[in-house]
Amino acid sequence: MTIAYDGTNFHGWQRQPEARTVQKELERVLSAVCNTTITIDGTSRTDAGVHAYGQCATFSGEFGIPVDRIMVAANNYLSGSKNQQTGDIRITSIKEVAEGFHARFDSKGKKYVYKLTAGCEPEVFKKNYYYQLKENLDVQAMREAAKHIVGTHDFKCFQASGGEEKETTVRTVRSLEILSSEACEGEKKYQKIDIEIAGDGFLYNMVRIITGTLVEVGLGKRTPESVKTIIKSMDRTKAGHTAPPQGLYLVEVYYE
Amino acid sequence: MTIAYDGTNFHGWQRQPEARTVQKELERVLSAVCNTTITIDGTSRTDAGVHAYGQCATFSGEFGIPVDRIMVAANNYLSGSKNQQTGDIRITSIKEVAEGFHARFDSKGKKYVYKLTAGCEPEVFKKNYYYQLKENLDVQAMREAAKHIVGTHDFKCFQASGGEEKETTVRTVRSLEILSSEACEGEKKYQKIDIEIAGDGFLYNMVRIITGTLVEVGLGKRTPESVKTIIKSMDRTKAGHTAPPQGLYLVEVYYE
Repeated sequence: MTIAYDGTNFHGWQRQPEARTVQKELERVLSAVCNTTITIDGTSRTDAGVHAYGQCATFSGEFGIPVDRIMVAANNYLSGSKNQQTGDIRITSIKEVAEGFHARFDSKGKKYVYKLTAGCEPEVFKKNYYYQLKENLDVQAMREAAKHIVGTHDFKCFQASGGEEKETTVRTVRSLEILSSEACEGEKKYQKIDIEIAGDGFLYNMVRIITGTLVEVGLGKRTPESVKTIIKSMDRTKAGHTAPPQGLYLVEVYYE
Repeated sequence: MTIAYDGTNFHGWQRQPEARTVQKELERVLSAVCNTTITIDGTSRTDAGVHAYGQCATFSGEFGIPVDRIMVAANNYLSGSKNQQTGDIRITSIKEVAEGFHARFDSKGKKYVYKLTAGCEPEVFKKNYYYQLKENLDVQAMREAAKHIVGTHDFKCFQASGGEEKETTVRTVRSLEILSSEACEGEKKYQKIDIEIAGDGFLYNMVRIITGTLVEVGLGKRTPESVKTIIKSMDRTKAGHTAPPQGLYLVEVYYE
């Protein structure tokens, strides 16, 4: 399955006994549709407030229902009342895969986008969907800094504590692009900035810490070159702040 | 005060003892800031789920604090934790007015926008902010229908029951424009349609019923000319469905 969700009203992806989570909600609905207990494996355990255009998940069993029908029925359940056109989770595609295929272990990488606005007062409608900065950002400086991040490095400096223990903190960032456009609403002009980052895997909070560091470069608090030193230090305290979860979107999961 | 809010997590504007409403939340925060009990008068009692870019409200008293400071302090309160850049209510401007000036009784009219998307599957991120239609809409037909609505008419056909009793159901719609653009996200193309309506006043659910009627014209279920007959009938059952609250935004309140 490919799944889109608005993470605002979830305590993240991972099933928890007392909290509304994306995994738990999907398992509840799929179990109802398939009339048996379903557990799903997702690719990325997104945090509370983080969104997805293209989370992936797998589940297995024989249900005697074509997968397309499972998707339609689950989306109807997820919509809640008949007046709702969609719920805050939506299965956007579904297909049968080879037995043993696992959404997480078989993935070859992921792409995230981190969305920011800069140079204007925060807006209520963007509260859950953007990191809103009052100051303008120097996008050219951020792009220079980003060049030092692309490639295979030990990214320990960009790893938050509290995540799952990993064997290695070496990862490959395949691309890191900073898209900027001038937006306007009424008389208000501001910068709309998307940080697109793709790689083979990401450490806990890695994208949000990279974003926080790039924002500090964009604000002139750090030089683009300082990012090289930060990476070499392997020291989390040398990197920038952790950008808030609301601006982060899982865009796509790559498979062979 | 001019106030913007995301209506998603409110039971509308009007104060209610047991529910979170915009008026109640603002009064709570302003009372804390001004250190005395504040009650406010808003221009429009928006329903649950309805949003505002430019609601207006007045309150009176002598607080010994410049109004700009009241705004800044209230917005800080409304943001909640220090990591939030804004709350779901935000005071966008504030000024002192003549004694006795009343946000509602002194207003000369209002402008609303109703936002739709058409011709694509509903998207989770638009759930609370747009009326999402799978079918395409015939915007030209909707514009022709809109011409019959502009002007001074008895709009009883577009009034829902349950609102406050009004002396007359005659209102003047000063302008009704339908803005349409082709939007795209990835490979997906769809219509983005804004229905902008300004007038001296609106009956209960009037904008949402006009929108529902125009949508039915856009779907080919009614002719543009049929709108003339609907208005003449003064019969709510002859008009279209009530479009959902999520797409509706109070844009501006007019004063002399």
